[in-house]
Amino acid sequence: MTQKNDTAIRPTRAENYPEWYQQVIRASDMAELSPVRGCMVIKPWGYALWENMVRALDDMFKATGVRNAYFPLFIPISFLEKEAEHVEGFAKECAVVTHHKLEKDENNRLVPAGKLNEPLIVRPTSETIIGDAFARWIKSYRDLPMLLNQWANVVRWEMRTRIFLRTSEFLWQEGHTVHATKQEAIDRTYMMLNVYKRMAEEYLAIPVITGEKSVAEKFPGAEITTCIEAMMQDKKALQAGTSHFLGQNFARASGIRFQSAMETEEYGWTTSWGVSTRMIGGLIMTHSDDNGIVLPPRVASAHVVLLPILKKKETNDSVMAYTQAIAGRLRQQNYHGTPLRVEIDDRNIGGTRNWDWIKKGVPLRVEIGPKDMDADSVFVSRRDRERKDRFSIQKDEFIGKITEILDEIQSGLYEKALCFLKENTRDIDDPDEFNAFFSPKNPEEPEIHGGFARSHWCGRAECEKAVKERLNVTIRCIPFDRKEQSGACIQCGEESQGRVVFAKAY
Amino acid sequence: MTQKNDTAIRPTRAENYPEWYQQVIRASDMAELSPVRGCMVIKPWGYALWENMVRALDDMFKATGVRNAYFPLFIPISFLEKEAEHVEGFAKECAVVTHHKLEKDENNRLVPAGKLNEPLIVRPTSETIIGDAFARWIKSYRDLPMLLNQWANVVRWEMRTRIFLRTSEFLWQEGHTVHATKQEAIDRTYMMLNVYKRMAEEYLAIPVITGEKSVAEKFPGAEITTCIEAMMQDKKALQAGTSHFLGQNFARASGIRFQSAMETEEYGWTTSWGVSTRMIGGLIMTHSDDNGIVLPPRVASAHVVLLPILKKKETNDSVMAYTQAIAGRLRQQNYHGTPLRVEIDDRNIGGTRNWDWIKKGVPLRVEIGPKDMDADSVFVSRRDRERKDRFSIQKDEFIGKITEILDEIQSGLYEKALCFLKENTRDIDDPDEFNAFFSPKNPEEPEIHGGFARSHWCGRAECEKAVKERLNVTIRCIPFDRKEQSGACIQCGEESQGRVVFAKAY
Repeated sequence: MTQKNDTAIRPTRAENYPEWYQQVIRASDMAELSPVRGCMVIKPWGYALWENMVRALDDMFKATGVRNAYFPLFIPISFLEKEAEHVEGFAKECAVVTHHKLEKDENNRLVPAGKLNEPLIVRPTSETIIGDAFARWIKSYRDLPMLLNQWANVVRWEMRTRIFLRTSEFLWQEGHTVHATKQEAIDRTYMMLNVYKRMAEEYLAIPVITGEKSVAEKFPGAEITTCIEAMMQDKKALQAGTSHFLGQNFARASGIRFQSAMETEEYGWTTSWGVSTRMIGGLIMTHSDDNGIVLPPRVASAHVVLLPILKKKETNDSVMAYTQAIAGRLRQQNYHGTPLRVEIDDRNIGGTRNWDWIKKGVPLRVEIGPKDMDADSVFVSRRDRERKDRFSIQKDEFIGKITEILDEIQSGLYEKALCFLKENTRDIDDPDEFNAFFSPKNPEEPEIHGGFARSHWCGRAECEKAVKERLNVTIRCIPFDRKEQSGACIQCGEESQGRVVFAKAY
Repeated sequence: MTQKNDTAIRPTRAENYPEWYQQVIRASDMAELSPVRGCMVIKPWGYALWENMVRALDDMFKATGVRNAYFPLFIPISFLEKEAEHVEGFAKECAVVTHHKLEKDENNRLVPAGKLNEPLIVRPTSETIIGDAFARWIKSYRDLPMLLNQWANVVRWEMRTRIFLRTSEFLWQEGHTVHATKQEAIDRTYMMLNVYKRMAEEYLAIPVITGEKSVAEKFPGAEITTCIEAMMQDKKALQAGTSHFLGQNFARASGIRFQSAMETEEYGWTTSWGVSTRMIGGLIMTHSDDNGIVLPPRVASAHVVLLPILKKKETNDSVMAYTQAIAGRLRQQNYHGTPLRVEIDDRNIGGTRNWDWIKKGVPLRVEIGPKDMDADSVFVSRRDRERKDRFSIQKDEFIGKITEILDEIQSGLYEKALCFLKENTRDIDDPDEFNAFFSPKNPEEPEIHGGFARSHWCGRAECEKAVKERLNVTIRCIPFDRKEQSGACIQCGEESQGRVVFAKAY
């Protein structure tokens, strides 16, 4: 039953990180690219993870007073055009619906027919269509704040797709709020970013840096874009969620006006905020290893898989019954408010079975054979430990301790990722060091570089652009925790008031 | 504080049922048509209802071994063409994506650009795109059964839209399964129909007739379409869910093959089944009255609204605290596995407030004033009773009994709807009686007719078509409970082996 390492993922992370990413997903059976260009199929193992993330986020949103609604998939071009920066940002990559039926042509081939008077685009985001509804619904300050969220699919036509990280269609939530005052809208922007930070850190075990985007990197039409940024194992940054203060831009564009308590007519102050299935990509790239995916227990598609060893006719039935009884007791356990998710895999396929579950990233694997049954014990492997580091434990003790073990795995993953983030984040003041930090050590491995640099920036878009062109490095954010500190811009050497986070990014 | 009936819905059901339907939805704030043709906005009060329905259905699906997944929004035309009946059924009403960006033309107007080589349609249903995945995933009988479900939006371009009942975009679930044997697929078809029957009857309090569709009414590409049919208050039928046995049609079209245990190569046997936001329309038309929506407790957006009476400065704070305390205790109560959903409406707007909640259909309204507080009681109104029929009850007693009251409301709604269905269903053998049954009593009220007729049908499509052309009446289903009984076809008078259900339908 011992298995050679040759069933692990090829290539390894060190050999070829981007290719490892594709292979680790394939091996986990979470998702795959579909024959429809740029669109993915999320398979049950991946979708269950997403369902757990949705539930956690949805509960947190609702706890802040947000309610869910649903708005149309299609947006008339005229709506998109209302906000100039916005249309600029999305017109280049949207699916356009131009016809409403198919007919056979003279060669008996189906072709589009029934041309629409005004083409529709498939929503890339819904500020404009939701803004139109808000303008109809909001009359008075008594109608405010308006706090809505939508779980939906969106489409942004992508030429270079990468599963979960950049796909033409993806699943997300988009929150949209309207407030009577600027300050209240700004507070909501930060409040929702904080929900994202909690989601990333407490549920996904991904430590994040929070901050504000530079003008060049902000959402088209926003006044302030705040973000959570995580470090992947190749030391590149992943923007894992954004929360935007939109000022009165969209309120003016859509006509969201209200009568104030003073009986004056005012424009509303709006926010929007979203996270998507991209977070799954971030989770994979943060925790997984050369053996496959590693799922943090709080969102894992399953917490534990039971693997009955069914090799002898005389004992198979009793081993199976013993396994079922354990599953039943485990499912009655509560883990952070939800019943434990337990899988049983009773296939008799040798070591492949164990490897399948390693690759799927299930936190705990429990082997149960006739000897374990006789000893009233189980044989446990933790996904966060070496494969050899397995242990036998009394069944009752295991059932009593499982949630504790899961919490230990959860916090261990977070701690490990936090160490990695810290180890690979550096204050850099010397331009040469900065250049070296972001230059591949080996030209054949372009992904290997230093990590996050906290360096001074004068605040000018030219310097930001120059760094990007030179090194393919962007300002990930102006971190909220930055200290006022004078220094010299890493690009031009001029006066700077503090450090920003530079990194290569997904 | 007494309110005249003139805040009820106009027109009444009797005056103009279709218009009443629009008005009752408007008054409830559940949903509205959007400026995007045929698309609706589901507002928070309507979406919360949908969320409750989703949760109930999802739990029932999972209990039968079904897992969720997600497939692309877009379907290449070539996929749709694979099944001849299928493309025939959907080509006439689909949104076609032909371009992937927008550009400015010479007049500075945005126009579609980046023409696609092959146009895509927005999924009207996903048999073909999911079939393509199944063909890739399924190799052996060991991979079967494959039991998947998807929660998604779909688009069927509608020229005449009616909110919830017929919209171009709607939300639904579509289950898709593959089996090794015909019998297993047929069993699954009926199993899922039975889930829908339970959903309709136990959760939505809508009694349904179950049966099989005639050839003319079945799903394009199916061998057998089974359905649940409900009777609305205007005595028209609503098809509220369908479950299809697809034979090997889609397996052949998509190439879903597997190696059997006998090592032969076989085509899979598939099923698909779906319910949609249309069910919400059915719920509204089954239970609501001339005062507004009536929501069955099992799925109600809220179970109870607390209405503190805040008219005196001296007592406002204590009434509010008393209300909050009651809300807290109610939210700890469990109703069929979920915490009670409690709203507090503290607006000081007189009787309008009470009416708002009548129109929203919340099962229980609880008024709480200083006198109630002093007596440690609350003042309760049930949405299923006359408005005058309100009662004072000790607070603790109310909290202790609330789930019982909700169950009573739930079963009362079901019983009432069942009586209505029975009263308006008749065995009709005489063609003249049949004609009269389906002819308006008053030509100015074309909706008023007899209900469901259980009549003989010879089984020929011509007769079915003739009845439809003559009376706009269709065969809703060949009911599962029909008795073998010889008789004369209601259209042609020839030999028939049993009765089918005829009705006008949505």
